[in-house]
Amino acid sequence: MTDTATAPAGVHEDGSPERLAIDTIRTLSMDAVQRANSGHPGTPMALAPVGWTLWTKFLRYDPDTPDWPNRDRFVLSVGHASMLLYSLLHLAGVKELDRTGKPTGRPAVSLEDIEAFRQLGSKTPGHPEYRHTTGVETTTGPLGQGCGNSVGMAIAERWLAARYNKPGFTLFDHDVYSLCGDGDMMEGVASEAASLAGHLKLSNLCWIYDSNHISIEGGTDLAFDEDVGKRFLGYGWNVIHVDDANDVAALTAAFDAFRKTDDRPTLIIVHSVIGWGSPRAGSEKAHGEPLGVENIAKTKEAYGWPAKDFYVPEGVQAAFEQAVAGRGRPLREEWQATLAKYEEVEPALAAELDLILAGKLPEDWDADIPVFEADEKGLASRDAGGKVLNAIAKRVPWLIGGSADLAPSTKTDIKGAASFEANNYGGANFHFGVREHAMGAVVNGMTLSGLRAYGSTFFVFLDYMRPPVRLSALMELGCTWVYTHDSIGVGEDGPTHQPIEHLAMMRATPGIDTIRPADANEVAEAWRAIVSDGQHPTALILSRQALPTLDRSKYASAAGVAKGAYVLADSPDPQVILIATGSEVSLVLGAYEQLKSEGIAARVVSMPSWFRFERQDAAYRESVLPAKITARVAVEMAGGFGWDRYVGAKGRTVTMSGYGASAPAGKLMEAFGFTVGNVAQVAKEALQG
Amino acid sequence: MTDTATAPAGVHEDGSPERLAIDTIRTLSMDAVQRANSGHPGTPMALAPVGWTLWTKFLRYDPDTPDWPNRDRFVLSVGHASMLLYSLLHLAGVKELDRTGKPTGRPAVSLEDIEAFRQLGSKTPGHPEYRHTTGVETTTGPLGQGCGNSVGMAIAERWLAARYNKPGFTLFDHDVYSLCGDGDMMEGVASEAASLAGHLKLSNLCWIYDSNHISIEGGTDLAFDEDVGKRFLGYGWNVIHVDDANDVAALTAAFDAFRKTDDRPTLIIVHSVIGWGSPRAGSEKAHGEPLGVENIAKTKEAYGWPAKDFYVPEGVQAAFEQAVAGRGRPLREEWQATLAKYEEVEPALAAELDLILAGKLPEDWDADIPVFEADEKGLASRDAGGKVLNAIAKRVPWLIGGSADLAPSTKTDIKGAASFEANNYGGANFHFGVREHAMGAVVNGMTLSGLRAYGSTFFVFLDYMRPPVRLSALMELGCTWVYTHDSIGVGEDGPTHQPIEHLAMMRATPGIDTIRPADANEVAEAWRAIVSDGQHPTALILSRQALPTLDRSKYASAAGVAKGAYVLADSPDPQVILIATGSEVSLVLGAYEQLKSEGIAARVVSMPSWFRFERQDAAYRESVLPAKITARVAVEMAGGFGWDRYVGAKGRTVTMSGYGASAPAGKLMEAFGFTVGNVAQVAKEALQG
Repeated sequence: MTDTATAPAGVHEDGSPERLAIDTIRTLSMDAVQRANSGHPGTPMALAPVGWTLWTKFLRYDPDTPDWPNRDRFVLSVGHASMLLYSLLHLAGVKELDRTGKPTGRPAVSLEDIEAFRQLGSKTPGHPEYRHTTGVETTTGPLGQGCGNSVGMAIAERWLAARYNKPGFTLFDHDVYSLCGDGDMMEGVASEAASLAGHLKLSNLCWIYDSNHISIEGGTDLAFDEDVGKRFLGYGWNVIHVDDANDVAALTAAFDAFRKTDDRPTLIIVHSVIGWGSPRAGSEKAHGEPLGVENIAKTKEAYGWPAKDFYVPEGVQAAFEQAVAGRGRPLREEWQATLAKYEEVEPALAAELDLILAGKLPEDWDADIPVFEADEKGLASRDAGGKVLNAIAKRVPWLIGGSADLAPSTKTDIKGAASFEANNYGGANFHFGVREHAMGAVVNGMTLSGLRAYGSTFFVFLDYMRPPVRLSALMELGCTWVYTHDSIGVGEDGPTHQPIEHLAMMRATPGIDTIRPADANEVAEAWRAIVSDGQHPTALILSRQALPTLDRSKYASAAGVAKGAYVLADSPDPQVILIATGSEVSLVLGAYEQLKSEGIAARVVSMPSWFRFERQDAAYRESVLPAKITARVAVEMAGGFGWDRYVGAKGRTVTMSGYGASAPAGKLMEAFGFTVGNVAQVAKEALQG
Repeated sequence: MTDTATAPAGVHEDGSPERLAIDTIRTLSMDAVQRANSGHPGTPMALAPVGWTLWTKFLRYDPDTPDWPNRDRFVLSVGHASMLLYSLLHLAGVKELDRTGKPTGRPAVSLEDIEAFRQLGSKTPGHPEYRHTTGVETTTGPLGQGCGNSVGMAIAERWLAARYNKPGFTLFDHDVYSLCGDGDMMEGVASEAASLAGHLKLSNLCWIYDSNHISIEGGTDLAFDEDVGKRFLGYGWNVIHVDDANDVAALTAAFDAFRKTDDRPTLIIVHSVIGWGSPRAGSEKAHGEPLGVENIAKTKEAYGWPAKDFYVPEGVQAAFEQAVAGRGRPLREEWQATLAKYEEVEPALAAELDLILAGKLPEDWDADIPVFEADEKGLASRDAGGKVLNAIAKRVPWLIGGSADLAPSTKTDIKGAASFEANNYGGANFHFGVREHAMGAVVNGMTLSGLRAYGSTFFVFLDYMRPPVRLSALMELGCTWVYTHDSIGVGEDGPTHQPIEHLAMMRATPGIDTIRPADANEVAEAWRAIVSDGQHPTALILSRQALPTLDRSKYASAAGVAKGAYVLADSPDPQVILIATGSEVSLVLGAYEQLKSEGIAARVVSMPSWFRFERQDAAYRESVLPAKITARVAVEMAGGFGWDRYVGAKGRTVTMSGYGASAPAGKLMEAFGFTVGNVAQVAKEALQG
């Protein structure tokens, strides 16, 4: 450590290297926000000592190998404090990797990147973005999500440890840290995630709660004066208080106490002063806007800092990197040596782990996917979903997940597998509780740690978990959302349980594939597409009610699912196209047969995935929906929003114009016009133009 | 009480009238679920004693006047236990009112209605539906929502009391009870609402938590074993335990204790046995399916109940009704006498209250709505929104609300008004905290109690509050959701903060008006439409960035907002139509001017509300968007999903195909093609077909 030599005079009278590094973080954050003329300086300034203590003294992280599987995870749930993270990545000397994991030879975050904070194309966007900046473990900003992700990461570690650690071979023993603020503590998703983490006794999980008594509208006493510590004791957490965020010794003791706690998660409540050291210290004005040139000058003066912008005193970066790498690199090297031996002793498990870490699948992963015989009575697509999922999970054991207390209905249990519980971290069936929102954030976290995770609930309760579903799409995570009870076919539970607008919501969301299969074989093809892809999330939309298994000798193969839409049944020179998804496909087939008997040539298009269909070339799309056939009818037991795209100006829709009702499903279908007779009638109207 | 005479032998050896009434509720619930062959028998069976105790001994409710403004509210947050509520409404003899509040002469729930449980058009849908069944205070089913609604109702009571009670005139002093289950306790929205209620010290609020240790997947120990009582102490609640749901004396003592607590809300934790008395007692199998004929027979035997279906022993209904009405009717009569005197002493306040209760507005409510001068620089529509809101709220003091900790950004504060806090329940500015989901449920509850409530946050965080937004539409509540920062115009905060799919999500949701005004005068007309309507919720979508205030002497009047879309600028014999909403309207006006200078005749349509436009007659719609003009361009800084409806097969869109990015807004607009030049270019392409 040579950096004391460059310590400016003033408040740095102790010349401590930590204070120098800490104030570097603070001033970089202030300067970057000022340069960008937007951003959040106050929290990085307050929490710089926390970041410094955690990264230089505890985090097991190798800056040269930021994708080392057993690294400790650092989640910045307070995503608006992104400059804290960028400063830490810069000072730690984290190396950039490309999307395939190859080093690019560049730093993850250079000083130039920090100077380009919040500019188009820079490595330093306003909120940290996964995949965009190496070292960012998850995209944060929407509050509470990082908390939920961290629980998922801690779960993944426990599962990986349970499955792959063997006596003498500790491949997984990392910890997960999440830095949270008052906003996180107020968000319900974090409450749900904390309750689940307490239940699961995740002792590898540490949340650091920055209690600064400031929110955007003013003091937290305007809206939030609960006893957070007492609440977390109720959840079964270990709760530690640090009275002053600048007290590095107390922070160190707190992290030590976390590391020694082996039976529950830890919450460290750190009392801090937002914008510490600035004229705006302790005020909401330090939260979300630049401090201003004058305030920055005063702050630097108070710190005993030279009046330079983006100033990193000599030696500070090297000392910081050395502190991190000096601990992390030998651990990573040891880990790789252990893995090499493990490959000899446990070749099967090692091969499996290799696939997980490479994001690959076993060669014969889809060998057991069933083919379903034609069957007029058929089965619910949720039931088919359960069968296919089980057939794949048998060969892809890291395809794991569960439900928000609806597994008996969503059929997502892996049969014969244990539940993932505090006394069995090897279980594959997850009981998320009635916590859809946390489930979403946790599944994202599990996926970020390499698992092929899924979560399930009723489709209408997608509403409870929209934020993590959106983030799964934004982060391009290969997780699967299984949504059953997908229409008014829900029946008696009524309009609160009948999704109407949800298909449109999902289709409107960029980057997520929404597949609504028509029968058991389409379900099989949907799951095949989902698992073989893995580069984006999928929402699999399944029925409560039984659907006929179509006779594929009479109609086209279900393999068309992969293309999003395909001609299922056709007539020579068709005059009208009937388009449907999911449970309505067999309905339009009925109409097709009726029209045929009346001498009307129709075509039936099954369209399980708009996402996939839009990605086909123009020729294929034209072959399925020829422009010259303008008589078209789309049939879907949901709102019609969006269908204009495929039916065009002369087309018709048989869809829902309002909410459903409580009644037996058959009665509802009749009442709302989902009958063969009505669809055939509407087709004839469409033919008349 | 003559009903002891009809008590069957057996377990009714004590012949207590309460046990007779309680078992009537239980058996009605079992029988209705069995007849419907679907539903949830176990919770009504377990909680019948709670319902009986609360309704016959505490609830201040007049069955003849179920809309008495000062009635205690009973919220069934466990909406799946609807048969408990229907049984209570039946036994209490609640009279049906039509939508205008006139008695229909029929009971709210007759025995025949109970026999028609879950049938098409019956009064007894699977989950309780507000407006559908008299006496149902709010639509429940999606868990946690009723909890949040109850906080809103308690807030409304405190606000009404603070404003209208005067010495000697206690017009408002009602309590709000919510019956909650394990699912509610797990949902984050209930956690948020509980934290807020504790902060606000709502001593008129009582949650009864049915702790039955059972969830759908099995015992709650699978996912939920936190100490709920300790958690609520952390929130600042009073916590009371009742060890046995059948212990009417303990329940009575608990409700007494709640009534005496005047400084905080009360949680009564009631330990119950789901499906009490049946062979499935204590099992998840008692939750969500009929018990079966055989089990029902055994249960009735265990109760000492005759083997009759839908059996209400003589006198039980009359005794129950007498217990409720005997307390409620005199209170309601006294209240009306007080109100009559109040009208003399406080005529101004009385007149105001009269408007609130009638759902009406003061005659000159819109007199201060500003007209904004043309101004090229203009102002952000969020700023215009704040000005207009303030102009209306001055004359409609019950137009109140707030923000989820973003008021300085959403501009929804009522200037000069106090904050609604525990020490000032007369405040008009609400600090909901970073709790968007609870804000939604609370605003719904406030609206259910007669206020014109609003809640605000950034548009992208609509995701956090989808469930209550949907319920506001389903319940046809006249509340307002103010969403600002409505596009990539957010700028540097990046894709986590830039809504893309949210306009489509809202437009796809039935029954809610989504208005995205183009300038300050459209904002004024939007608020005028919102406040004068009040029969459905509105989402008002506002910009972060400044928008020019259009010169209305040059372009059409903003009054067209009421029709959803209107021709803003036109040319003789237009060849191409440019359609836009919000911030993009001034952009397409620029393109229109450029095209004009190049001799191309264009029309500009401002389309702030699809909801309103779709409700215009065909002639008007054709006058705005003539079918013969097929060259059309829609411009919106959001995903293009849904625009096919208006641009047609030959039209184009200038919209977002993916997520945004972090950069100054101007740079983003350029990067994503939102420039006058690009829009003009695309218009020319559209003209070429």
